[in-house]
Amino acid sequence: MKKQQNILIIGAGLCGSLLALRLGQRGFNVNLYEMRPDLRKVNISAGRSINLALSDRGLKAMRLAGVEDQVKKLCIPMNGRLLHDSDGNTVLAPYSGREHEFINSISRGDLNALLLNEAETHQNVSIHFNKKCKSVDFENTTAFFEDYKTKETFVEDADIIIATDGAGSALRKSYFLGKKFLFSFSQDWLTHGYKELSILPAANGGYQTYKNALHIWGRDSFMLIALPNLDGSFTVTLFLSFDEGDYNFGNLTTPEKVLEFFEIYFKDALALMPNLIDEFFTNPTAPLGTVKCSPWSYKGNTLLMGDAAHAIVPFYGQGMNASFEDVVEFDKALDEGQPNSEEGWEAIFKAYQTNRKKDTDAIADLAIDNFHEMKGHVNNAIFREKRNLEMTLEKNFPNAYSSKYSLVTFNEEIGYREAMLRGRAQDKAILNMLTDKELDISDDLETNLKKVNRATEEILENDRVAKNFKH
Amino acid sequence: MKKQQNILIIGAGLCGSLLALRLGQRGFNVNLYEMRPDLRKVNISAGRSINLALSDRGLKAMRLAGVEDQVKKLCIPMNGRLLHDSDGNTVLAPYSGREHEFINSISRGDLNALLLNEAETHQNVSIHFNKKCKSVDFENTTAFFEDYKTKETFVEDADIIIATDGAGSALRKSYFLGKKFLFSFSQDWLTHGYKELSILPAANGGYQTYKNALHIWGRDSFMLIALPNLDGSFTVTLFLSFDEGDYNFGNLTTPEKVLEFFEIYFKDALALMPNLIDEFFTNPTAPLGTVKCSPWSYKGNTLLMGDAAHAIVPFYGQGMNASFEDVVEFDKALDEGQPNSEEGWEAIFKAYQTNRKKDTDAIADLAIDNFHEMKGHVNNAIFREKRNLEMTLEKNFPNAYSSKYSLVTFNEEIGYREAMLRGRAQDKAILNMLTDKELDISDDLETNLKKVNRATEEILENDRVAKNFKH
Repeated sequence: MKKQQNILIIGAGLCGSLLALRLGQRGFNVNLYEMRPDLRKVNISAGRSINLALSDRGLKAMRLAGVEDQVKKLCIPMNGRLLHDSDGNTVLAPYSGREHEFINSISRGDLNALLLNEAETHQNVSIHFNKKCKSVDFENTTAFFEDYKTKETFVEDADIIIATDGAGSALRKSYFLGKKFLFSFSQDWLTHGYKELSILPAANGGYQTYKNALHIWGRDSFMLIALPNLDGSFTVTLFLSFDEGDYNFGNLTTPEKVLEFFEIYFKDALALMPNLIDEFFTNPTAPLGTVKCSPWSYKGNTLLMGDAAHAIVPFYGQGMNASFEDVVEFDKALDEGQPNSEEGWEAIFKAYQTNRKKDTDAIADLAIDNFHEMKGHVNNAIFREKRNLEMTLEKNFPNAYSSKYSLVTFNEEIGYREAMLRGRAQDKAILNMLTDKELDISDDLETNLKKVNRATEEILENDRVAKNFKH
Repeated sequence: MKKQQNILIIGAGLCGSLLALRLGQRGFNVNLYEMRPDLRKVNISAGRSINLALSDRGLKAMRLAGVEDQVKKLCIPMNGRLLHDSDGNTVLAPYSGREHEFINSISRGDLNALLLNEAETHQNVSIHFNKKCKSVDFENTTAFFEDYKTKETFVEDADIIIATDGAGSALRKSYFLGKKFLFSFSQDWLTHGYKELSILPAANGGYQTYKNALHIWGRDSFMLIALPNLDGSFTVTLFLSFDEGDYNFGNLTTPEKVLEFFEIYFKDALALMPNLIDEFFTNPTAPLGTVKCSPWSYKGNTLLMGDAAHAIVPFYGQGMNASFEDVVEFDKALDEGQPNSEEGWEAIFKAYQTNRKKDTDAIADLAIDNFHEMKGHVNNAIFREKRNLEMTLEKNFPNAYSSKYSLVTFNEEIGYREAMLRGRAQDKAILNMLTDKELDISDDLETNLKKVNRATEEILENDRVAKNFKH
């Protein structure tokens, strides 16, 4: 048995903090480095993803780390999408026909602080702030840092380096630029960017609009969404093209034009956003990208996790949940492996990626699909008919039917890939049968469930046969 | 009207040479820069893709440039795949049921020389060898070069810079590293690499094995192929995993092991390859990658074309054909645009990409599918039954049926994407009907054609409905 191993984690965001906590619980010596100051002492919200949607895959990870109860206190349940049309009419589209299935709005900062606090309770976990990783020498398992305040640079050695440093990962950049092995890599940008805005709390500290929903103002080629915060405010996000259409981030350059845009498309939201103009011109406009890469590890020494390995767009509310699920899956790989030699770690890293990458690839693709669903299809008649049927099936056959959204969001016992394949086949079956009038919503439910299941199985089977000849 | 415009082309490979020729024919001032020496004066074959498959899309481009007749003299028709099993038995699997549909083996060097010669007949075209482009300043439309011999560096200015400098493009690298705009980019490596070998001509100068076919020794997880050359030799390529399986590039490190591998799997080929060991240990092992990116242009000044914009794996024999078709499509965009102002060029570049990228994305994916088809499925009973049915349909209904292979390879009037969608739907329809015994090869042909077409249309229609809700 080797001496107790030193694990260096780069990045103390949500994934890195949870990983440090879990590896601390498992008894490793953990050093966690973070480029930013300690968010528990300094307010560093930068107008970017202030709150997030926590759902079952993320909660499973919280359970593994023993913090689920604490985390739930930070949660605001969102039972569905509250759809706002241009005239200000609203309708609630539930996420599930099962009452216990909902997602939760949670503050990124509060959750991160909780995980850091928990990690710090372990004597074998040390956290170092204001230390930015510039590159990783993956042949020698050393990381090169710069101190944010003193600008001094230094090198840290470790047995294992795990990078949880997000979409712009220093380790991933070192893999890419190092050209020491064949590194597959993709970055894909959407034509749309986003900007965070806000709805303030009511004067009495309450909520100015319905609290327990994710609000959507879907306008086909762009959309606004809002998620509730514990203090009564909502964090609002505008998703809009950089340069296409009559209104875009490129031409919304004056207060008048911004007001005009909101007057036409988001009148009811505008009424709740007195700070709109200030926020619009102060907060950054950020791009929306998907990053995939492979391999995630080099030999048995360095590993990418979380957004560093697979950054996705936010439209399925699964970015954080997927990163948390990474920790659960990595924990499983540790259980099954032999983390007491370099060969053991190499096998653990490979097993982890083999099991995990198919799922993170799937959620990346699903998240892009959902962008189109949220901004447009939620308003489409056939799409709504499909959702209504699915809600009814989930309600009446709680153990026999789950929509794609439920499979992805509330069925943490299956992977994203399986959820995607089954969910897409169901969607295809229902949409085609509705279009061809082969399904009648007024028919008895059991008949419809059978029809949907039969058509779904046929699609899955036909895809399987064809796919056998593709790979 | 602006003064005659100066176009700088980086890379005098197949795409760059054809582009220089075509733009010369259109009257532009063209300067073509190439990092290598003039291949017409120096033998620079480096054991890598000595010959290629030229088919209808490539020939269409040759026609546009007025060189089709000359090029055809360099061609060796290949009418099908000659499949070699482990016992040395062979069977010819034709590429089409129509006799006039075949692909052609052609020497990369001879074809490139022909295009350079033709380009040079235009006074407004100048070619500069031994000048390596290191980077492009795409804000100022200048390219930075190094002279291969003198190592002197210099900067060239132009109105338009078009990079046809292949998979490692300097302009693409400048786009990526410049971070001046959102640049989507992917590089994907297969687990397999390749190595070029050869079968020598017979003593009398003839061919040692059947001349008019592409030979395939498909062994499921690896394969050997051979294409004929005009001098009686064949260029042989081994596609093999870098590190997986009992035999791989990583462990074939001794002559004994290489001979053992060929003895077991490629006995009949080995008998024709007396130089195997020399070549195996002299020629490089190269990786197989796919590159996609977007946008292909920056403003109206710089543009990526050919492999620089979309490098693909070689398994559909379409890499060169796709690059040549780029020139045809770019020529169309020039016809329809206004190349006398920067705004005009910007519109031309955008129209070109909008029309073209869906097709180069499709052929990239098809090429990867075909890797699996060539090394394994060609030996599968149901796959062969499908091919036999398709050949019979093509033969008996020459105007009513084309297989996926025919759509991609011989139907240059439709784009790769349309060929992919229809071809995949047909494959899925036939494979599923054969698996479910819903098709009987001995049935009358017209019935089977109708069945195939009906099932194909249903698949396409169902995909369309589902896809409307994805994008």
